[in-house]
Amino acid sequence: MKVLGIDPGLRNMGWGVIEVDGPRLRHVANGVIRSVGADAERDLGARLSMLYRGLCAVIALHAPDAAAVEQTFVNKDASGTLKLGQARGIALLAPAEAGLPVGEYAPNAVKKTVVGVGHAGKEQVQHMVRVQLPGVSFDSPDAADALAIAICHARHLQGRSLRIVARSA
Amino acid sequence: MKVLGIDPGLRNMGWGVIEVDGPRLRHVANGVIRSVGADAERDLGARLSMLYRGLCAVIALHAPDAAAVEQTFVNKDASGTLKLGQARGIALLAPAEAGLPVGEYAPNAVKKTVVGVGHAGKEQVQHMVRVQLPGVSFDSPDAADALAIAICHARHLQGRSLRIVARSA
Repeated sequence: MKVLGIDPGLRNMGWGVIEVDGPRLRHVANGVIRSVGADAERDLGARLSMLYRGLCAVIALHAPDAAAVEQTFVNKDASGTLKLGQARGIALLAPAEAGLPVGEYAPNAVKKTVVGVGHAGKEQVQHMVRVQLPGVSFDSPDAADALAIAICHARHLQGRSLRIVARSA
Repeated sequence: MKVLGIDPGLRNMGWGVIEVDGPRLRHVANGVIRSVGADAERDLGARLSMLYRGLCAVIALHAPDAAAVEQTFVNKDASGTLKLGQARGIALLAPAEAGLPVGEYAPNAVKKTVVGVGHAGKEQVQHMVRVQLPGVSFDSPDAADALAIAICHARHLQGRSLRIVARSA
């Protein structure tokens, strides 16, 4: 099965697709959808539309079976939180419209699953993404975060199916 | 021309459509899209999907030429702001995906245009919506707010075309 991870942001929407093969994970693709440009700066609707279409294209291209989105950190700046919320609405809508179940994970849960501790730094997360997805390369920290979210969701799905196997054994 | 006003909310998304005929306004339709239900409560993606499809259906049915969304009041509760942001992302996306230009107005700007003062109460706004849209009836305060936003956008569009006429005279 394939898992899509999304790191929501109004300017940069990170995404990463991985394949889950038993206990093994494999990198498929990653990238960033950017909503910058002359028109986009003026028109918020047009920006959200760019992000939505970009995510729909990623889903159409890679046909994931499940998706997960980061439960965005709520910072102290209310206007920033509102912007993030708008981008997050799009990040949740695109997979839901494609009929995918969408998981949500707090940043600390992602770090805990991928690195082992909830307060890991960016570099530590990126290092462990590279360790768990051999051969992966990414240009953007947002894409790396999206891959970490996908790994977190995959590990939770693996855990759940292990528990189901254990229960039926 | 027809104008769609949207009052964004994660639970209740108010909408109202009016027709602009020269200086006159006419009520076309209004309502509320609700994202409540057993599945919706559990799955945020499904809730946003319900709101998105509802708005797309309203746009398909009434074929507005322009849309306007309230620049949501940012309250002190960050988690509430994030939820509102998610709903607002959907409210901006649906008309943008239909190719409509989307205006944004702060609540005070809406009140100032519809009532004449920026700090008008809910009842005063609803009263002036009834005065300016003869024969209108609405069941929900969210639908009334959406009609007020549509009126605000219509008045701004009328003001703009009046200025263009005056300049060319």
